[in-house]
Amino acid sequence: MKERMEAVSLEVDGQKLRGMIHFPSGEGPFPAVALFHGFTGQRMEPHFIFVKLARLLAKNKIIAVRFDFRGSGESEGEFQDMTIPGEVEDGIRIVDFLKEHLLVDKDRLGIVGLSLGGCIARLVATKQDNIKCLVFWSAVASPEELIKQKLTEEYQVTKEGYIDFGGNKVGKDFLATLPRVEGPESLSAYRGKALIIHGTKDDTVPLEHAYQLKKILPFSQLKKIEGADHTYNRVDWEEEVLRKTVNFLKDNL
Amino acid sequence: MKERMEAVSLEVDGQKLRGMIHFPSGEGPFPAVALFHGFTGQRMEPHFIFVKLARLLAKNKIIAVRFDFRGSGESEGEFQDMTIPGEVEDGIRIVDFLKEHLLVDKDRLGIVGLSLGGCIARLVATKQDNIKCLVFWSAVASPEELIKQKLTEEYQVTKEGYIDFGGNKVGKDFLATLPRVEGPESLSAYRGKALIIHGTKDDTVPLEHAYQLKKILPFSQLKKIEGADHTYNRVDWEEEVLRKTVNFLKDNL
Repeated sequence: MKERMEAVSLEVDGQKLRGMIHFPSGEGPFPAVALFHGFTGQRMEPHFIFVKLARLLAKNKIIAVRFDFRGSGESEGEFQDMTIPGEVEDGIRIVDFLKEHLLVDKDRLGIVGLSLGGCIARLVATKQDNIKCLVFWSAVASPEELIKQKLTEEYQVTKEGYIDFGGNKVGKDFLATLPRVEGPESLSAYRGKALIIHGTKDDTVPLEHAYQLKKILPFSQLKKIEGADHTYNRVDWEEEVLRKTVNFLKDNL
Repeated sequence: MKERMEAVSLEVDGQKLRGMIHFPSGEGPFPAVALFHGFTGQRMEPHFIFVKLARLLAKNKIIAVRFDFRGSGESEGEFQDMTIPGEVEDGIRIVDFLKEHLLVDKDRLGIVGLSLGGCIARLVATKQDNIKCLVFWSAVASPEELIKQKLTEEYQVTKEGYIDFGGNKVGKDFLATLPRVEGPESLSAYRGKALIIHGTKDDTVPLEHAYQLKKILPFSQLKKIEGADHTYNRVDWEEEVLRKTVNFLKDNL
């Protein structure tokens, strides 16, 4: 059977988000999941783990969409203008797109977020009342402290007003808007299901962030991947993350 | 002015290559450049440098296409089946697509290849007689020795027949086909122009590979980026690489 993967675009504030939608075979309606990438990442993510997840979901009768946030990947906008509130706007637009899609069962929606994409997922879930499943991969629970520590201790703001983060221009607004990002406690009103996956050797976002999320969502499942790094860069770690995620969504969405 | 970037797909051996084409404004025909990504990479590459290059080329009246090779990114196929001869087939298909495109001036074609994509670029250029410009970014000149050294010294082939390379399954065929990859000397018949760019601190593909290419193409330009790593992960390195590449292609294509 040939896969059904189609390029799709949406507009937010006059700028185009570019992404892909993966359809299962059959007529639907299907449950649907949006995948939110991380900081400086894009909709494929390392070792194409987002493409692999979307393909697996489609095989399991779940629609998957993967978009680049504005300023990242192939979407319009400059990375230098990227902010967390901006990515939340993008995320809401993506969820709205799923709700309006004829093949989607709008009562069965989920979000998988990797790293900062996990933070965006929780912020979107507090603003959209019908997210039924959240899956956090190596998610940032509290961004402000972590980001300030990573960006301001080792990097300097240039006279042009950005931090040179490995060739990515991190703009002033990204840092300036951090204090107004809601903390993880806002998620306590969330009434859906949640799965929290985190590597025990994550150097980028410490395991502590997973415990923070678990504390706010006591009914959630926490799955630690023994020895795994931030993006599960080993075949067995990847397989475990994909298997747990697909099974959780099949059972709960 | 809105950019004109469109999703495009091609077939090779019944499998779909997925990519993007960037059009300049105006009616054409335009010269055109194909961007070939590296090993385990995809058509955006780190800090989206391939997206940035394609946008700049389109602004400069040059069509740009970026595809994922089979088994990589969003293209069909398994990474475990990826081989250099397979990527060369893909590359030839991509160049043929440009030659057949109504908006492309087929006498003004170029290829930019990053890392292993540079090796694919030279192999395609020896099989297609009308490539007018080649640009090598941190290119692998002689793959066999380098890859064997990187893959077989630090990694083991699993009983399932692959090497776990950071979550990417490198297949037996990738290694088995290395001895039949033509060496860089085959490029001595190339009659087009060439620009070789390489970072002086490239730990992944040593600068020596740039010198090998320069020796075979004595008429080419060699531009060293002082202190730069393999994928130019600093804003000033990236800007220099993009500027040199666009200027070279504007002047020579």
